Amino acid sequence: MGHGRTLEYPKTPINRVNRYNQRATYDLEQIHTIINTSTVLHVSFNTPDAANPFPVTLPSSSFQMIMSHPSQMVGVAASFDHPSSSLGEPLDVYLHGYVSSRLMNLSRRAETGAEVGGTATSAPEAGLPVTISATKVDGLVLTLTPNTHDVNYRSATVYGYATLVSSTDEKLWAMETITNSVVSGRWAHTRVPPDTAEMTSTSILKVKVVGGSGKIRVGGPRDERKDLDRADVRAQVWTGTIPVWESFGDPVAFEGVSVGDGKGNLVPVVPEHVVSFVRERRGENERYALAAVEDRSQD
Amino acid sequence: MGHGRTLEYPKTPINRVNRYNQRATYDLEQIHTIINTSTVLHVSFNTPDAANPFPVTLPSSSFQMIMSHPSQMVGVAASFDHPSSSLGEPLDVYLHGYVSSRLMNLSRRAETGAEVGGTATSAPEAGLPVTISATKVDGLVLTLTPNTHDVNYRSATVYGYATLVSSTDEKLWAMETITNSVVSGRWAHTRVPPDTAEMTSTSILKVKVVGGSGKIRVGGPRDERKDLDRADVRAQVWTGTIPVWESFGDPVAFEGVSVGDGKGNLVPVVPEHVVSFVRERRGENERYALAAVEDRSQD
Repeated sequence: MGHGRTLEYPKTPINRVNRYNQRATYDLEQIHTIINTSTVLHVSFNTPDAANPFPVTLPSSSFQMIMSHPSQMVGVAASFDHPSSSLGEPLDVYLHGYVSSRLMNLSRRAETGAEVGGTATSAPEAGLPVTISATKVDGLVLTLTPNTHDVNYRSATVYGYATLVSSTDEKLWAMETITNSVVSGRWAHTRVPPDTAEMTSTSILKVKVVGGSGKIRVGGPRDERKDLDRADVRAQVWTGTIPVWESFGDPVAFEGVSVGDGKGNLVPVVPEHVVSFVRERRGENERYALAAVEDRSQD
Repeated sequence: MGHGRTLEYPKTPINRVNRYNQRATYDLEQIHTIINTSTVLHVSFNTPDAANPFPVTLPSSSFQMIMSHPSQMVGVAASFDHPSSSLGEPLDVYLHGYVSSRLMNLSRRAETGAEVGGTATSAPEAGLPVTISATKVDGLVLTLTPNTHDVNYRSATVYGYATLVSSTDEKLWAMETITNSVVSGRWAHTRVPPDTAEMTSTSILKVKVVGGSGKIRVGGPRDERKDLDRADVRAQVWTGTIPVWESFGDPVAFEGVSVGDGKGNLVPVVPEHVVSFVRERRGENERYALAAVEDRSQD
């Protein structure tokens, strides 16, 4: 897969973005970046219970979710050939089983055809249909009238079919990639590898992504001409943007369940992989929010 | 409705929280507070297209969403009798039509029975089934092993039936309450009331909530005894929490689409209702995240 190309999700009735006053995107790199830099994601799916018309929506932290190359699905080795730095290529999503036993059980049943009918385990439609969403708020936009108030944000949705990972190699690779997707290099700084009991008790869900879309709003207030032309209104109503971003505080070392119980952190200084993660994420988020205020590309 | 009572959503197969290592809540006040203090919410629903198995999930900023007393649905006057300060009472949710024309159209069809069958417009099941979710991230919890890594967070889900508001009084009241739910007192500091064209072009969706649940995780790392008992592991792996919160920057006055176009903000100082909103929200979020690190109630 070459770099420099821009791949897009195909536009269909399912993912078409209709809302005005914002920029729709189908660009894989933009969509995948929003998902991979969001601390929390929402996973929605339907239950087989005919009496329940409501989609189930579960939060999932990025500790439990990553996106990776489909070609890496076969095992750990492939991950070295296709480094995950290229977010503009087709990707799948992995979910840690921790997230929900209900989601895992439904996926297992869907995989064996219990939910989708038949036994077409390897057909593209095998698995539980899920929708994964992430939204980052970048600012509150205060305008002349209530109806024109808006929010600067980046939102992404991908959807696909979820199945359980059965290969031990793939599971181990996914666990490592998930851990490092939150704090770069964290895996190597923890007690690894997982022991046999941990490998057995851990489920990893793989979502084969079939489509997606994104929405991005940047810039300042956008009012209607009828209000902008009224000096009395513009003299009375303050307009502008309140930048919003996710802030990361200084790391707090664990002292034990009760202070002095001898089970707290024994490492004397916060290690570099944690310090640099906090510094970088902090700066990125604030910089983006402030840049979004001044961005005129959507005016 | 009295204060001091704790009302709960009934536990059903739909809203039961199964995940371990966190605190489930069905308490109305906790759930409603999470939703009302979240800057962004996710709204999920199904489309009538049988070929689309994926729930649609849309982000909705709190500019467009409020919760209010069901008794207020009849009009503006009732809102004075039942101030919205009591989040522990049964509430409904209002969505601004801006959010999605697709969501509005589906709700209109569901309301008239086109989607739910029959013409039982006033039956409890009239309307489009939607699920509304909010999650606030409060910290990243770094532990001894990858599998025990966790996140401090507050998450809430409510679900119910969405219909369009037809009464002009109720629509106007909802627009005012929605605006003030983001920045207290903002409505009175904007160009109001909306003119006839604005009232006609604005749709308000009312979600009659029938159930909900929440999940809250606080505290520091929780590792297994087998790892805590190993001094070598505890000497090598840093454990602790990185507090995370939503930060609000200093308000940036609008300069016009291009600087000097004469359409920018004319109010010389940032007004008090904006300044105090930023100060309060900023402090609340940071204080909660830091308190969550030290909270031992779930240990």
